Parts: sequence; structure tokens; C-alpha cells
Amino acid sequence: MAAMEKSLVALVGMGTVGTGVARLLLDHGDRTARHAGRTLWVQHVVVKHPDKPRDADMPQGVITDDLQRLLQDPQVKVVAHLIGGLEPARTIMLQLLESGKDVVTANKALLAEHGPELFDRARDLGRTIAFEASVAGGIPIIANISQCLAANQVLSLEGILNGTSNFIITNMQEQGVSYDQALREAQRLGYAEADPAFDVDGSDAAQKLAILAHLAFGARVHWQEIPRRGIDEIQVNDLRYASDMGFSLKLLAIARLRDAGLELHVSPTLVPKGTPLAEVRSAFNAINVVGDAVGPVFFHGQGAGQMPTASAVVADMIDVAVGRAAITFANLKLWSQQPPRVDLSDHAHTQSKYYFRFDVLDQPGVLAQIAGILGKHHISIASVHQYDRDKDHATGTVPLVIVTHRAQEQHTSQAQREIQQLQVVKTTGERLRILSVEGGN
Amino acid sequence: MAAMEKSLVALVGMGTVGTGVARLLLDHGDRTARHAGRTLWVQHVVVKHPDKPRDADMPQGVITDDLQRLLQDPQVKVVAHLIGGLEPARTIMLQLLESGKDVVTANKALLAEHGPELFDRARDLGRTIAFEASVAGGIPIIANISQCLAANQVLSLEGILNGTSNFIITNMQEQGVSYDQALREAQRLGYAEADPAFDVDGSDAAQKLAILAHLAFGARVHWQEIPRRGIDEIQVNDLRYASDMGFSLKLLAIARLRDAGLELHVSPTLVPKGTPLAEVRSAFNAINVVGDAVGPVFFHGQGAGQMPTASAVVADMIDVAVGRAAITFANLKLWSQQPPRVDLSDHAHTQSKYYFRFDVLDQPGVLAQIAGILGKHHISIASVHQYDRDKDHATGTVPLVIVTHRAQEQHTSQAQREIQQLQVVKTTGERLRILSVEGGN
Repeated sequence: MAAMEKSLVALVGMGTVGTGVARLLLDHGDRTARHAGRTLWVQHVVVKHPDKPRDADMPQGVITDDLQRLLQDPQVKVVAHLIGGLEPARTIMLQLLESGKDVVTANKALLAEHGPELFDRARDLGRTIAFEASVAGGIPIIANISQCLAANQVLSLEGILNGTSNFIITNMQEQGVSYDQALREAQRLGYAEADPAFDVDGSDAAQKLAILAHLAFGARVHWQEIPRRGIDEIQVNDLRYASDMGFSLKLLAIARLRDAGLELHVSPTLVPKGTPLAEVRSAFNAINVVGDAVGPVFFHGQGAGQMPTASAVVADMIDVAVGRAAITFANLKLWSQQPPRVDLSDHAHTQSKYYFRFDVLDQPGVLAQIAGILGKHHISIASVHQYDRDKDHATGTVPLVIVTHRAQEQHTSQAQREIQQLQVVKTTGERLRILSVEGGN
Repeated sequence: MAAMEKSLVALVGMGTVGTGVARLLLDHGDRTARHAGRTLWVQHVVVKHPDKPRDADMPQGVITDDLQRLLQDPQVKVVAHLIGGLEPARTIMLQLLESGKDVVTANKALLAEHGPELFDRARDLGRTIAFEASVAGGIPIIANISQCLAANQVLSLEGILNGTSNFIITNMQEQGVSYDQALREAQRLGYAEADPAFDVDGSDAAQKLAILAHLAFGARVHWQEIPRRGIDEIQVNDLRYASDMGFSLKLLAIARLRDAGLELHVSPTLVPKGTPLAEVRSAFNAINVVGDAVGPVFFHGQGAGQMPTASAVVADMIDVAVGRAAITFANLKLWSQQPPRVDLSDHAHTQSKYYFRFDVLDQPGVLAQIAGILGKHHISIASVHQYDRDKDHATGTVPLVIVTHRAQEQHTSQAQREIQQLQVVKTTGERLRILSVEGGN
């Protein structure tokens, strides 16, 4: 074989994902060479603690704590930026771009927070940022939306984008354990951080949804503008009642093009069993995208973890090295001055079927009072279920579950507030969206 | 907005898919422009019968029956080649390449038959062939394998690649109708051709598998070398017995990297219900790919039809126009002189659990005779089920279903032959592979 062209690359950061990337590049250079038509040669690995033992055999002299060595090496054009958090991650990415490097990143929080600034700077400098690994780890959703489905107007996108939440919910559902127990198990197995707040409160999913909505719909939205609720207040009983009615609960990140604009939210949602999204278990991620030409396309895979994420990073490094990523990045025009192609619809007006659970005194006339309030708010009841077996003998309450026909978010939340104030209702209860089989939520 | 760059493109053939492509390019030029950074301007549409009425509004002077007009127009660089069959499709593709055009095609049969010649010619001429639409229609499996999963060694690939077969099998399973009835229904609804042979006998799936195996494993195999069986001899009773045991039947195209080489075949296979492949219904396609870094990634979508296929064609046209496809095609090195990276394993030695059904006389000693033959061939029995309710009173036979532990293909086929010759066995019966939940077949 003739001597193969070399592209010098570098890594900044060598935590879990960085170690996986180093392994793929060093141990499987033949395969990256085959797909890139050139060797991706690891020239520098910039870390904070160069003397720390590493899980990948690094060639001598590669590891350094001196970022300048990389910045001042004009031969290195492709850098995998694999440090978490906002700072110094942001400053380092700007330095990399300014020193003429194209950057591959898995840092979704950084893009969700500083994406516009970083993309603008890259554009001004003629550089590229590739970020497949930032959303849904091993599922190549960025490439699929921005490239493979380019002939489509995306109509809707429903994603299970937070593996921690899905792991916890799956365990609650299948083992009947409480949220706290399922969370501890997730922490023990490494699926949840010591402080899981960002994962379980919907923030992480909202950050990923903001990135996908930018790509798929040309939306310009900061993740904090996205209405969101997590799974951290879900009670195991509701999973049981929902299951009896044929539903699984999933934390869905939803984007839908409506006449009124783009509907965008992160919501624990009841999904009919037997549909692909309902069957996504454990820490897996999945995304259902509907395009106006292609129809529904469903993706399922590992949303996190060392090697799935490293797989996405290295695919991006190849794309950058061969020049594909530069073309894609330029055409995506993710610039802040670009006018948004769509505005958000008013969340209060979004429609869905709903699941309500109220803990009510077991006495006559209760349903009439609740139904009265629902009726006043134009909410039509599809079915009512009272779970006498779950009577709370201390308070004398029984769970009353009501499934509605399609109703507006604002009407259901207002009705919930009023019903909670009834004398006969003893807890805050629950209110969950139900995904329609047709895809309308 | 500043005047946008134009890329002149052309279509050859305007059947169902061609009409869909024309619609996307003409009615949704804004969207292709956005993704391509330039307008894809339809300059010529070459058809056999220019005066035939069309379902797409074509600009004046675009439609022609003169291929030379296109071949001699040096401004047109990208051509969607949308004619079926082998000739004149092959000759026209060679003419397009020789006149300096890059070619996008959906013609899987052409690639399966003449791929090496066409790819070699394109390489020699410095041209590109893009063929996303040739496999699995709306599922972008070509881009995902050749680009998004480039950091992986693909370990296995299991696909439902023939929508006609899946439609028929789903209907037999869910409605309890016979193969003939389900086929007629498929023909009535346009899911099956008047002559369905290629779809239902496994040939179509084998052609697609040959293309995927080339991409994912570097295999060099003609589709006719792939052991294959279709669904055209499946009896509805076997679907029922399998369903009782928790399986759905799917026509799977399978490629698996084994120590002994690449296992490659198309087989009606029993798939455990609740797994993603088992839940693929109607005419949908699906593919489960396992990469050594990314783990399992599952894709589900429409495998055929006008707009899903057109979606794939137009995505390829954009990729070609912006220059991404040229990079990918060059790096894929699909040339005939390229040595294969893997050899096929001996199909006789592939292993699987098996489902057998024999129609046997309802008398003592029958099971002993059959078990004796299975034992002689090193086939270990996992369970036995006799369906007395389905006794055939004319012949006095009852269906006997045997599920085995893992056994070799050659042993099970030899055992089947010997068992068929027993006096107490009255029909040829059935033998089906069972997909293991771990993914081992």
C-alpha cells in the first residue's frame, strides 16, 4: 500500500469520552483511514493533569497540559473538544477556532448556552463546528436531519433524549419501585450523576431539543424558553394506572409544526404501548421524525456512554478531515443574524388528550363536582376510573383517574388548579399529556 | 436576498419516483436551496413519451425524448437516473458518466447486477454515483453506514428490506388469511406487482443485502451467491403456532461477522415479539445495525413509495451538488479491483435455533422416531408442541412443532430431509430460523 496521507488531529480533554475517542483513533486507525482516505494522526492530547494514569495507550510526547502547544501548531486542523461545562470550555473553543482549527464537540450544554456566539465566530473565521455527539450520543440524528432528510420539511419530532430519565421511568414501571429507589439504582449503576437535577427535571432534554429545533425548523430559541417538566415528581401509582389503560410513560421532547407556529416542549407523556417510542427501554434514546416527503423515520440507539459518544465524535472528525463537515456547516447557516424560519406557538394553546389523577374522598357527588369544573373549561371526558383497591385509609381518599378528549393546555391547567381547591380533593394529583397514535399530541 | 447560485440538474425517467423528485425540486425549491446553498434547477427531463400527461407541472421546454440534448449539455452536472430494469438503464448510466455527469440512482437491481462495472467506470472518469434510494427507500441507511457509523466495525446487520413481503406476512399474521389471499390484497393496494416473484422469493432483499454487505463489511458478493428463501411458501398455521410461542415471522436479510467469515443470507425468521424488528408492520422497512463502538442502532421507515424514495433521491442530488457525495464515493472505494475485506462463511455451518413443523400420524412412537433423527444430527430439542385441535381428519395427521437449541444449518436441513421420509410424516412440513434475543441467529 502506498504511504497514506495523514491528517494531524488533537484532543482537548481526556475524560470518559476522550479516552474512547483516543482508543478508536489509536487502536483502530485502519478503519478511520479507510473511511477518511487518510490517517487521523493524534498529535496532541491537552489535559489538565498530564501525569494521571490513562485507560488508553498514548504515544510518547502526545499528552500535554500546554494548550498553547496545540494552538501554535498550524499543522493540526481538526480538534475534538471534549471538556464539559461552560467555562473554560467556551474560551478554549474560541481559542481553537481563532487559531485556525475546526472543532468537533460533544458539549451540548455549551452549544445550548453559547451556540449562537460560537457558530457566528466559526463562520467569521471560515471554520467549522461539528456536534453530532452533542445530541443522542450514538444516534446520528444531526447528520440525518441536516443532510439525509434535506429534501423534507420536517413536520414533527418526538424524542426520548435523556437516558437517565428513561432508565428511571423504565425501572419504576417494570419493577414498581418509587422514583427515589429508581434514582438510587441509576446512580449506583452510573446512569445518573450524584446531582441528577439537570437530567431528571427536563433541562438536559430541553437543551437537546433547542439544538434539534434549530436544525430541523430553523427555530431560534434558548433552551430556557422551552416549557418543560421532568420526571422527578412522577408517582409510581400513575405509571400503574396508565399501564392498565395501555400506556407507557416517556419523557418526550416534542417539536411540532402547527398553523399557529412551532409547538416546543419537554413533557412526561403517556405513549400507547406497541408504538416504537413506548418500547424504548432502559437508558436508550429514540427519536421519531416525520418529514413531509419521507413520512415517519424512527431512530433508536444508545444516547450516552463512552463508546457510542466516541463513535459520533470520530465520525465527525472524519467528516471534518475529508471536508464534508465544512460544506454541511456552511449550508446549515446556524448564525444568530439568520432570521428564524418559524416562531413558537403559544404553549397555553397547545392541545392534547390528558390524563388526570385526583385523590378524592370516597363519597357521592365528587365526580359531579370535578366533571362540572372540567366542563366549564371545555374539557370533554373520555373515561373515568376509580381505584378503590388503592384507598388511603388514613385520609379516606381513593385515586380517581380521568382521561379526556383533546383539550387546551391552559384549560387543563386552570381546571386542575380549581379541582385541587375542592374540599373533597386531598392532594395535588397528577396531569399528564397523552400522545395520540396519529402523532398528534 | 442576493441572487443564488444555480446548479443545473436533470432527470432521466419520469415514472412514479421521477414525478416525486420533480415535485420536490420544482414545488419546494426553497428548501433544497436552503440545504444546498444553491438552487437545483431542473434543466432537462428525458422521457420516452414526451407527450404523456404528467402529475408534475414541468416548465416549458424541459421535457424531451432526446437523451443527447442532456449528454451534450456540459452545464448539467447532476442527473437523477430514475429508470428501472437493467437495459437500457445500464447503457444510459454509462453514457451519463462518460459525458461528465454525476449520477444519482434508485435502481437497486442495476447496482446489484452491474455495480462493479458502473462504480469502476465512475472512478476512472472521476465521477460519482450516489444510491441512497436503492436500499430501504426513506431510511437513509447508505449514508448512516458509510458515513455516520464510520468509526465502527459493523458486527451485524439485520434488515426487513422488502416491504411487499412484510405487508403480506403482517396481514397473514394479523388477519389469519392465507398467503394467496394476502398477496391478492397487496396487489389490490399496489404493494405488490402483478408478477411478485422477485419481492416474495427473497431476490429483492438479497440484492439490497449485497449492496449493504459491500458497504458495511467490504464484502464482494453477487446477490445470487447469497443463500435466500422468501415468504411465498409460508403457511398461515405456522404463523399462529409461532405467535403462541411469542414470535413474529419476518423476512430478514442478515449479515453477521463471525470467526469463520461473513454470514450472509435472506431467511424467513421467527423474531421474539416486543423486540423492535418484530414490531415492524405493514410495508415498512427496518434495519438493526450493531457497531462495535456505537452498539445497536435501529432504523425504521417507509421502504418504498413515491415520496419516501424521492426524498432519498433529492438528498443525494443535494449531496452531489455541494460536493459531499464525491468525497464519500471516493473514500468508499467500491471498486472491483479492491480486495474483499471479508470472505463469506460456509452457509451450511451457520448456527441458529430452529422451529420445525411436521404433520405426523397421531400414533404412539412418532416423537421417538423424530427425536432419534434430530439426536443423530446433534440437534438438541428445547420444546415440543402437538396441535391436536388442528388434526386433519382426512389424513389423520396432527401438526407437531419442535423448537431446537442452537444447531447447524446443514444438520437441520439433513434432519428435515430424513424426517420427511418417515412413514408417519405426511407433508414436507416447515423449518424456520429463530432470532436469538442477544442478536445471535
